[in-house]
Amino acid sequence: MKESLNVAVCGATGAVGREMLKTLAQRNFPCASITALASARSAGTKVPFGDQEITVKELTKDSFKGIDVAIFSAGGSVSKEFAPYAAASGCVVVDNSSAWRMDDRCPLVVPEVNADDLEKHNGIIANPNCSTIQMLVALKPLHDVATIKRIVVTTMQAVSGTGKKGLDELETQVRRLFNMQEIETKAYPHQIAFNCLPHIDVFQENDYTKEEMKMVNETHKMLDPNIRVTATCVRVPVFFGHSESINIETEKKLTAAEARVILTQAPGVRVVDNPRANMYPLAIDAAGCDETFVGRIREDESCENALNLWVVADNVRKGAALNAVQIAEELLRRDLYHVAQPDMFLAK
Amino acid sequence: MKESLNVAVCGATGAVGREMLKTLAQRNFPCASITALASARSAGTKVPFGDQEITVKELTKDSFKGIDVAIFSAGGSVSKEFAPYAAASGCVVVDNSSAWRMDDRCPLVVPEVNADDLEKHNGIIANPNCSTIQMLVALKPLHDVATIKRIVVTTMQAVSGTGKKGLDELETQVRRLFNMQEIETKAYPHQIAFNCLPHIDVFQENDYTKEEMKMVNETHKMLDPNIRVTATCVRVPVFFGHSESINIETEKKLTAAEARVILTQAPGVRVVDNPRANMYPLAIDAAGCDETFVGRIREDESCENALNLWVVADNVRKGAALNAVQIAEELLRRDLYHVAQPDMFLAK
Repeated sequence: MKESLNVAVCGATGAVGREMLKTLAQRNFPCASITALASARSAGTKVPFGDQEITVKELTKDSFKGIDVAIFSAGGSVSKEFAPYAAASGCVVVDNSSAWRMDDRCPLVVPEVNADDLEKHNGIIANPNCSTIQMLVALKPLHDVATIKRIVVTTMQAVSGTGKKGLDELETQVRRLFNMQEIETKAYPHQIAFNCLPHIDVFQENDYTKEEMKMVNETHKMLDPNIRVTATCVRVPVFFGHSESINIETEKKLTAAEARVILTQAPGVRVVDNPRANMYPLAIDAAGCDETFVGRIREDESCENALNLWVVADNVRKGAALNAVQIAEELLRRDLYHVAQPDMFLAK
Repeated sequence: MKESLNVAVCGATGAVGREMLKTLAQRNFPCASITALASARSAGTKVPFGDQEITVKELTKDSFKGIDVAIFSAGGSVSKEFAPYAAASGCVVVDNSSAWRMDDRCPLVVPEVNADDLEKHNGIIANPNCSTIQMLVALKPLHDVATIKRIVVTTMQAVSGTGKKGLDELETQVRRLFNMQEIETKAYPHQIAFNCLPHIDVFQENDYTKEEMKMVNETHKMLDPNIRVTATCVRVPVFFGHSESINIETEKKLTAAEARVILTQAPGVRVVDNPRANMYPLAIDAAGCDETFVGRIREDESCENALNLWVVADNVRKGAALNAVQIAEELLRRDLYHVAQPDMFLAK
């Protein structure tokens, strides 16, 4: 079993890439070496890693020699192109894009939900979509006890989910509106400042967005294909932290009190649910935190066995960087840093 | 049948009261006279009415002599105290507070939904809660055709729902945060700028908020007591316009295309539903408009007969002032400006 690893972060200059480096340093991930990779355009710039600064190198097919684990956060097309070469070098990839999530050869993993799926990995492991991660961290312990039949979820997602350009767009629009200036829309199709956009990622044939269908498909892959899921995903003028209003129907009756006890003991969950003291999860409180916050736990009086929940997490942290680093840690704990068929993803 | 009416607006200096006056003027409501009433503190100030300015008078028990219709928007306790005296003077009250909504003697009316309920009024007519109004304008035509069995709704409500103090709080917090200053919370229990608060109105025994239970109870009173409703109401950093993510289950199957046709023909509804052109209802577009905007109409693939909808309206306009004025207009059309038992609400 390896004691320390040669680590690469691909897409190291982006919002999530920087958070990956920060998270690796904060959690004292056993790095024998750390390599920051990005496009040629960003090569030569410096990014922080703990109290060091590391120089970004250009990502190429040959970047992965001697690397044990590569965490990708450089978008789907970069992952599609380069992750197969990483795996072919015997490097295990943890990929934050949507490129490999629904590929049967690639486990899609939230450690609190389905860590065992890592055992059958083939060199590329997919990190789920941010909005699915926090939902399943909250729902898995309830599903184990009461079997969830149906999920109706509405998300309120922060602009940090769009990376630096989302953060910049909200800030710039707010500043310009408050100075009576015309605004521009670049990151989003419409004004995000003081508005709600029911549109995240691209629209599909069925009029759902890709973000909405990710919540359906990733829940089926990770938790249970029998759960019926429907989602409405909304971008809101919040910088950090996704909030989710979730309604679940279960086979077995769960009272709100029972759900509260189960969730209080669940890994990765922090229950904040004292409405009389105005205590419930908030995006501004979740920002920078590792946990998934759950509150507003109520029995849905409109349905025999149903609950409403309000689930909040830092979408850049648990929703992306932290979950990826947790996967890397779990692989180490289980001694899974080997790739049995290195050319699997290169061979068509 | 009366041709013009002596009109009073109670709570004329508030955000909704001003919108009432504006709406009465814009729609050329046949005012023989217009009286603006408010607390002693505001008496003597001036408020705009069309291109005039009118001087606010103090609201007292004797304010209603000779008044045909009084539109109240001065909060529940003022309505509870003064509406009975108005009715006792033979004046018909349209009350925007929650004081009379669940009183069996008082019709609760959205003209597009249940105008016939006005026929049995006793002098006080209640204007529903903003979030319920826009939901029912959108759902009534679908209920007529397919019979709604269950509603799961999550709202994203603008700060204008809290009146001027909500608008001020969001603006002030944003300015201070952008200037690296400490913020204060007065209108809300937590920061509203760049945050989502799953808390509107006070918490009830069952851990739902009063706002959430209004959506349940008012739907039962106005549309159908057999519809099972569950709501999660969220305050978001938007100035004007409530957005609602609504999931409905129906007895009869409705395709998205059928729902779109029905809603296109429905009174008070404007369908904006062309996702491929990035067209869907938005709070910033609904602000200042009379219609309830409906889009993102999708078949919920998780359930046999279910649809998802995204419904947006100006909460101060259709959600309050306009609906009240529409009630006043409908009363005129139906010749209902008479109070059969003027002392009904005074007598205990």
